[in-house]
Amino acid sequence: MSNRFGQLFSVTTWGESHGPAVGVVVDGCPPRLPLAVSEIQADLDRRRPGQSDIVTPRKEEDRVEILSGLFEGRTTGTPIAMLVRNSDARPGAYDEMREKFRPSHADYTYQAKFGIRDHQGGGRSSARETIGRVAAGAIARKILAQANPDQPVEIRAFVSQVHDIAMPVGAAATFPTLAEIEATAVRCPHPATAAAMIERIKQVRSTGDSVGGIIQCRIRGVPPGLGEPAFDRLEADLGKAMLSLPATKGFEIGSGFAGARLKGSEHNDAFESRDGRVRTATNRSGGVQGGISNGEEIVFNVAFKPTATILQPQKTVDVRGNPTELAARGRHDPCVVPRAVVIVEAMAALVILDHWMRHAAQNQLFKF
Amino acid sequence: MSNRFGQLFSVTTWGESHGPAVGVVVDGCPPRLPLAVSEIQADLDRRRPGQSDIVTPRKEEDRVEILSGLFEGRTTGTPIAMLVRNSDARPGAYDEMREKFRPSHADYTYQAKFGIRDHQGGGRSSARETIGRVAAGAIARKILAQANPDQPVEIRAFVSQVHDIAMPVGAAATFPTLAEIEATAVRCPHPATAAAMIERIKQVRSTGDSVGGIIQCRIRGVPPGLGEPAFDRLEADLGKAMLSLPATKGFEIGSGFAGARLKGSEHNDAFESRDGRVRTATNRSGGVQGGISNGEEIVFNVAFKPTATILQPQKTVDVRGNPTELAARGRHDPCVVPRAVVIVEAMAALVILDHWMRHAAQNQLFKF
Amino acid sequence: MSNRFGQLFSVTTWGESHGPAVGVVVDGCPPRLPLAVSEIQADLDRRRPGQSDIVTPRKEEDRVEILSGLFEGRTTGTPIAMLVRNSDARPGAYDEMREKFRPSHADYTYQAKFGIRDHQGGGRSSARETIGRVAAGAIARKILAQANPDQPVEIRAFVSQVHDIAMPVGAAATFPTLAEIEATAVRCPHPATAAAMIERIKQVRSTGDSVGGIIQCRIRGVPPGLGEPAFDRLEADLGKAMLSLPATKGFEIGSGFAGARLKGSEHNDAFESRDGRVRTATNRSGGVQGGISNGEEIVFNVAFKPTATILQPQKTVDVRGNPTELAARGRHDPCVVPRAVVIVEAMAALVILDHWMRHAAQNQLFKF
Amino acid sequence: MSNRFGQLFSVTTWGESHGPAVGVVVDGCPPRLPLAVSEIQADLDRRRPGQSDIVTPRKEEDRVEILSGLFEGRTTGTPIAMLVRNSDARPGAYDEMREKFRPSHADYTYQAKFGIRDHQGGGRSSARETIGRVAAGAIARKILAQANPDQPVEIRAFVSQVHDIAMPVGAAATFPTLAEIEATAVRCPHPATAAAMIERIKQVRSTGDSVGGIIQCRIRGVPPGLGEPAFDRLEADLGKAMLSLPATKGFEIGSGFAGARLKGSEHNDAFESRDGRVRTATNRSGGVQGGISNGEEIVFNVAFKPTATILQPQKTVDVRGNPTELAARGRHDPCVVPRAVVIVEAMAALVILDHWMRHAAQNQLFKF
Repeated sequence: MSNRFGQLFSVTTWGESHGPAVGVVVDGCPPRLPLAVSEIQADLDRRRPGQSDIVTPRKEEDRVEILSGLFEGRTTGTPIAMLVRNSDARPGAYDEMREKFRPSHADYTYQAKFGIRDHQGGGRSSARETIGRVAAGAIARKILAQANPDQPVEIRAFVSQVHDIAMPVGAAATFPTLAEIEATAVRCPHPATAAAMIERIKQVRSTGDSVGGIIQCRIRGVPPGLGEPAFDRLEADLGKAMLSLPATKGFEIGSGFAGARLKGSEHNDAFESRDGRVRTATNRSGGVQGGISNGEEIVFNVAFKPTATILQPQKTVDVRGNPTELAARGRHDPCVVPRAVVIVEAMAALVILDHWMRHAAQNQLFKF
Repeated sequence: MSNRFGQLFSVTTWGESHGPAVGVVVDGCPPRLPLAVSEIQADLDRRRPGQSDIVTPRKEEDRVEILSGLFEGRTTGTPIAMLVRNSDARPGAYDEMREKFRPSHADYTYQAKFGIRDHQGGGRSSARETIGRVAAGAIARKILAQANPDQPVEIRAFVSQVHDIAMPVGAAATFPTLAEIEATAVRCPHPATAAAMIERIKQVRSTGDSVGGIIQCRIRGVPPGLGEPAFDRLEADLGKAMLSLPATKGFEIGSGFAGARLKGSEHNDAFESRDGRVRTATNRSGGVQGGISNGEEIVFNVAFKPTATILQPQKTVDVRGNPTELAARGRHDPCVVPRAVVIVEAMAALVILDHWMRHAAQNQLFKF
Repeated sequence: MSNRFGQLFSVTTWGESHGPAVGVVVDGCPPRLPLAVSEIQADLDRRRPGQSDIVTPRKEEDRVEILSGLFEGRTTGTPIAMLVRNSDARPGAYDEMREKFRPSHADYTYQAKFGIRDHQGGGRSSARETIGRVAAGAIARKILAQANPDQPVEIRAFVSQVHDIAMPVGAAATFPTLAEIEATAVRCPHPATAAAMIERIKQVRSTGDSVGGIIQCRIRGVPPGLGEPAFDRLEADLGKAMLSLPATKGFEIGSGFAGARLKGSEHNDAFESRDGRVRTATNRSGGVQGGISNGEEIVFNVAFKPTATILQPQKTVDVRGNPTELAARGRHDPCVVPRAVVIVEAMAALVILDHWMRHAAQNQLFKF
Repeated sequence: MSNRFGQLFSVTTWGESHGPAVGVVVDGCPPRLPLAVSEIQADLDRRRPGQSDIVTPRKEEDRVEILSGLFEGRTTGTPIAMLVRNSDARPGAYDEMREKFRPSHADYTYQAKFGIRDHQGGGRSSARETIGRVAAGAIARKILAQANPDQPVEIRAFVSQVHDIAMPVGAAATFPTLAEIEATAVRCPHPATAAAMIERIKQVRSTGDSVGGIIQCRIRGVPPGLGEPAFDRLEADLGKAMLSLPATKGFEIGSGFAGARLKGSEHNDAFESRDGRVRTATNRSGGVQGGISNGEEIVFNVAFKPTATILQPQKTVDVRGNPTELAARGRHDPCVVPRAVVIVEAMAALVILDHWMRHAAQNQLFKF
């Protein structure tokens, strides 16, 4: 009872790592949108395993099939069901996990919750669940790009930190292009930092270890007015979206945790008139004030812990609670953030689009 | 379309800062719970303006009235409606705000969203909205304290940082008592730090400025198994709950942003057998793994920006977009975190209880 | 967990028959709508006890107070909280009901469900709960009246049958006016039938008995396109709305149960071109096809059982399950349908408006 | 935004009549339930086209595939995705419908709503959408059969009327067995009536026409206490569930529309002590009082209109609004009720199970 996200543009994901398939149902998609399967596939390819030498070597084509909701190349307004078959299942590769709880994985908590678990590759807790999110996000992003004829909504996430290697302050002064981000396997738009990050990942992998990192996401073109008072603030829903991703430990928007160290006189964003509309001189608010977008760039960071799977022996207990040791083996990403970039973008797109639709329904439909 | 939180134990808040009243409807409360209005009032008193010399001097009794859902001192399972009358309204005190957008407040975004706004004291965007949350949270906390006869759920939030004054590392090694927290006006359980914080707040207030801060929240007694796979992870819902509070800019759980700088071999929490059950040797996970509680203490931090209202003149624009200046005056909290402590606790209680009910409905009802 | 209705224009009702008050929170109301408390009151007055000599003599002014969501006479887009104080409480009048289950009331089922109940006047199961619905419905109806500048949505319910006295076939050939309906205490627009109905109600009341009846509701001005495929069909949501009213036992739309006796060649509504748009020659569909409005008049019937409270002694059991007899006394409506007319209209308005907003959000926001 | 049903045990259906497949995602299924694909298939076979000589000859195997949520023969508590491939697509068979609106079908309303439609076989409005409901319902029924070890919940629907041929009064005095219902192709447990119904259907089909009918559904074993006050009454949700089925025009519970003709003294169900618990002497309430089950048999009727597809030429308009005639051809059910029996049972199961879970979460989890 947890596998649905969004109120009007809503997505329901399903599937386990080593079941027959993973997939998603998108409900509430506006009709008449031209949509090709290749547009979905393009985003999935950015998420796919095996795309570079710093990610997991698991072999998955991740070919998406659209089963409903399209007619003659356009959406019909009915649910869009998409699925991706799992192909690289390895029967037997996970036998040890049937008996032992992997540290900092969801093995124990799933067992405690459900009294049963699919131990193969983490089952439902596997990041393969995010395939459905990315597929749905690709549709949302296409809609947002066309929503306002004068100004497309652009969502750009990138890796800003790996382990203790961070982009220099000011390096992201301008909105990065997709090409700049995709230029390196680590998806950091600052070439020198990217090189150091890749080096660090390779080094850590060589010791069988893993590292964490931070993704920054920036969104421009969002009109003022999205987000709701009280509970469904835009940053609250963005935060939930990001914290629902595997391995995330933190979310901050605008000034974030650093903002707690400032005075009001330093933090407030003065209003000014610019470009014919109300703008702020600075953007410590991160594009959201009182839970509602103010038309400035939305900027937030997401912290990811190091991958829990490591190729080193670890102490743990078995399903009967007896102390044991987990052998070191398996395929994994030594650092999840490069592949998570497109997932962050997808979730951001789902939030923005859903709020756009909610905003319009209440505020733009009737003329009083 | 935003004023409801929770799926099974759900709360709907309503009201504006200077309207007749603010209130809440609690739907889904378990029946037969003994409940006295004084129990609600006790939490409201911790949130109330004017309770110490470092918070706003606005005079509000904030007396709560229970209008439904109780019969002979027990809940009936029907909606519990509660309201608090606004008393310290100052007609005319907000005339300037009718014409000018206060920097880093919600004035502009509400106007952009709705095309109309109640400018008095921020209207719906006022933190008075959180009165309803605290009242509902008081009920949730009482239920949680009794939920498991063997082990009450205890939720304890406190101020861990004000401006750049933070509790020393290790100062919160043990679970703080309510008395330790309430011992000082700033609600920091480390007396020396608390004294410095209070000093800083007074100093900043004397210059008409404000400061931000951080609240830490710790929860013990939560059984393993709460939280849902995919979107409604426990940390995702806790994050949303906290980021839906006014002035919040960040949320982190367990290792948080610092965790991004660690290696997997440093970050993983080894399992061990302790106290007759599965425990972790460390708690970098912050009590949640794979989105589901693991029975360890839940620990998270919430970053608050400095209060946007300051007693210094600020540049802004008026409702027609013309540059202007905002005069310096008004009543405000120079730092919101001391009063926000009970609000953080309330929101945490709402999340934990709602997930408990959801968990039970799916996993504990039927015996297969 | 049941006290909320509607997805975008959503209402949450609260309150018991003999508690301090009953009320409602309306969330999602479009902003900028001019709204006066007198407009809400007008509908409540049509529902009020004591308005004629064929309804309950319970004395209630039912004066509504608006507590939030309005600013200078217009809605602000934030929640509108409304309450009505209960005034005619009679302590002691319900002592017998504390011990005995009234037949065909909700006494037993509430006890079985919650393990506790407010026995006074039915508590939450009292029809006083519908006060909140009527107040919210008054707002929805005003919006619908203005939604389409070319064509107001008009919702007109009336009593078409009391006991076995029904309006003659064809008597409702034209859309009845409000004046025709309000002309008689029984709210049947056919004067001769109305007179017979009133006579029947008085006669039945004189024997301490009660009767059931049928309300017909007709809605014109609804544009084609409202309603959703699959589960949230317009007739499904109208049906749920009506069957959620106290004392209802049936719902039918268009041809209804009589349609089951027809052949397809008799039942199908041929399309034709009329008034410059697609129309149907007949309206056995009742304005809805495939769950979606087709622009024709929406016509449905709601069956109400006879009032369960009668002034005759009845066999029952007490709370310990022992056989007993219920004495004959109390105040009640000998027939609920005259006062239920405005409640049916209110619920219909909530459904239509909510679907209008949902439709717009998905289908009219983006131009592809 | 309409393709989901249920709050805790929730189902999302997707798919079009002539798309690649139809399917469903079940979210919230309790874990550890033994489940075989053959159990789902058994119900789908009762719904399948071509199963007798009085239903559509469309050839569909309707073989279901389970894609997730099962592990080693048991449910895991994660979403259960199921799909059925469409096989009997006839390209070109629907060319006429691209241009013309079929009377009393959803062609026109889908076009009006979405501005686009899949005209092949009705697209999303096809009754093939109910495949997903039946598959989900099969799971719900299995759970309900085991929910209470002392008393299984049994749901039995059957055809009580076809055209003007109805079961004699009193014919369904005892709860019918599945064998009695499945004994005839028309699924009426009264053999003589069944024979007449079959005769009527064949006769009507021979003239290219169709007929409507009524399904009665009876449920026993439901404990007292399911259903919620106010909006989510058990009969309201049952009514919505049934009215969300294609071709339904009416719903009544217990005394239904006939109850409107009774007096309170005739209609009230006296309580008595029987079998060691509180029972009613009669059951005009239909097993629900005040929206909540009272432990008696739940009894309701659903009215279905005659199939809109007939093999006779009909007047209509084309997509440009010009008058035209629809040729007579196609495959169809001359009467939908025999195949709809299992769909009614499925929807009833979804409602009962969802309410059971909701009830438990609020009322049975905590002991006060």
